[in-house]
Amino acid sequence: MFVDRLIENIILKKNHSVVGLDPRINFVPKYIRKNYETSKKGECEAILEFNKIIIDNIKDIVACVKPQIAFYESYGIDGLNTFVKTIEYAKQNGLSIIADIKRGDIGSTAEAYAKAYFEGGFVDVDSVTLNPYLGIDSIKPFLNYCDDKKGVFILDKTSNKSSKDIQDLKVDDKYLYEIVGKYINEWGEANKGRYGYSNVGAVVGATYPREMKVLREIMKSSYILVPGYGAQGGTAKDIIDCFNEDGLGAVINSSRGIIAAHTKEENSKYGEKDFGICIREAAIEMRDSINKELEINNKLAW
Amino acid sequence: MFVDRLIENIILKKNHSVVGLDPRINFVPKYIRKNYETSKKGECEAILEFNKIIIDNIKDIVACVKPQIAFYESYGIDGLNTFVKTIEYAKQNGLSIIADIKRGDIGSTAEAYAKAYFEGGFVDVDSVTLNPYLGIDSIKPFLNYCDDKKGVFILDKTSNKSSKDIQDLKVDDKYLYEIVGKYINEWGEANKGRYGYSNVGAVVGATYPREMKVLREIMKSSYILVPGYGAQGGTAKDIIDCFNEDGLGAVINSSRGIIAAHTKEENSKYGEKDFGICIREAAIEMRDSINKELEINNKLAW
Repeated sequence: MFVDRLIENIILKKNHSVVGLDPRINFVPKYIRKNYETSKKGECEAILEFNKIIIDNIKDIVACVKPQIAFYESYGIDGLNTFVKTIEYAKQNGLSIIADIKRGDIGSTAEAYAKAYFEGGFVDVDSVTLNPYLGIDSIKPFLNYCDDKKGVFILDKTSNKSSKDIQDLKVDDKYLYEIVGKYINEWGEANKGRYGYSNVGAVVGATYPREMKVLREIMKSSYILVPGYGAQGGTAKDIIDCFNEDGLGAVINSSRGIIAAHTKEENSKYGEKDFGICIREAAIEMRDSINKELEINNKLAW
Repeated sequence: MFVDRLIENIILKKNHSVVGLDPRINFVPKYIRKNYETSKKGECEAILEFNKIIIDNIKDIVACVKPQIAFYESYGIDGLNTFVKTIEYAKQNGLSIIADIKRGDIGSTAEAYAKAYFEGGFVDVDSVTLNPYLGIDSIKPFLNYCDDKKGVFILDKTSNKSSKDIQDLKVDDKYLYEIVGKYINEWGEANKGRYGYSNVGAVVGATYPREMKVLREIMKSSYILVPGYGAQGGTAKDIIDCFNEDGLGAVINSSRGIIAAHTKEENSKYGEKDFGICIREAAIEMRDSINKELEINNKLAW
């Protein structure tokens, strides 16, 4: 089961965080960049080296990485090659993968996407993010893989400010995100693993702690992927309610907060070539902040 | 303006239809397939040749093509190369492009996607399809290009059966798709062209004629991309209300109905190498059916 492997990896590393691999060229130290041509292709090669150094520095402490395809796609074919190679390298190093692709399309098209991501047509990953706007037709082709090896995280209440435009609309006495939460819970009922969690997870932003509390109740057995920690403003206190009483049930993502840690003023003490250590320290700090908050709330899973 | 160029192309060719370039290997005639290796790469090369022959056969009668990226992505990098080359060939042949990518993500990520599709980071297209679930943040980076050269089509009421799961939820006395329609109309207000249409369009399925009628009223100046014609069950009668009184305002997509026309029993009269003629005939038939229905309803734009 996808979710069991994810949880085992989390427990092994005592770490609920996910590192978002959303690289931008200005995060890549100059000493790496100068080894490559100043072309699109060269930048993609530099980004791949950057990603590999990040992975080398976090693989023993982090369970999961989440590459966001947009940042690779903006470089075209070369970037997409880097996306694939980054995922392969992360897998070789024992990391669980969430491919952040947010796909959502009619059934026959969703089948093509499932083939791309769950059968290795494009790249073979453990899990993907999906958009629920088209309803169950668009999710089902992925669920066919979720009885065993694969998992999905379906957008519910997203971390951005304007998530309210649609997600907070009131349907009778419920918010739309509550209804989507009920769907997600229902879609996952059939595929639960040994820890009681299903392979059908949800995305709920760290920036909405109040909504999180409600959604945690609605989707007791869904793993929640929580973006918006760090750079987007969410703190350890904000995400405490995304965990169940067993101290499980959520993975917390930080992208820029980790992979651009070395570009922060306060981290100028690190030499350019020590950026990997700086990133590792940021990942440790995030892990410890979350675990400390869990401990205070009697929710440590180990 | 994107929408003006699209309309001029439609009027020039007297054709409101869009050909969906969603190829599958079994649509490609054997005489083409046997020129290429029986590998993923070979299949992608065969698909590119197939697409080019389709484009050669429809370019003088059709205004617009809509490649659906999923069918290319399922082949990985080779498929995505075919996606790019297909779009380039279609542009060289005077066709407007709708890249059917249905992206929807937080602002910084949406910017990366806009760079990919509207600045040629990946491929430079006239317009893309977007998913509104994350609200205006996810649309805005694209709107920044819609004051002039580019356009978007935002999912509203999609053609699939389970579009009801979320899109038909009732918010006070309105359906969710009506609220999304109001947003789309509003987001397009600032960017209207000389025919009175905006660069911010909508996607409404041919399979929902009743909802179409309501949405046409809400989004008077949005161009509506209408999938679901043909293979998904929509007929010329079903799509008449997606046009305004000026006989404009909608493009009707058919994918399998056109690009797999030669695989139908009833078209076995065409020789294998005449598949392009068969596809052309199917495109002409679709054009004429729609125009006939428009004429009956006094809605011919020319």
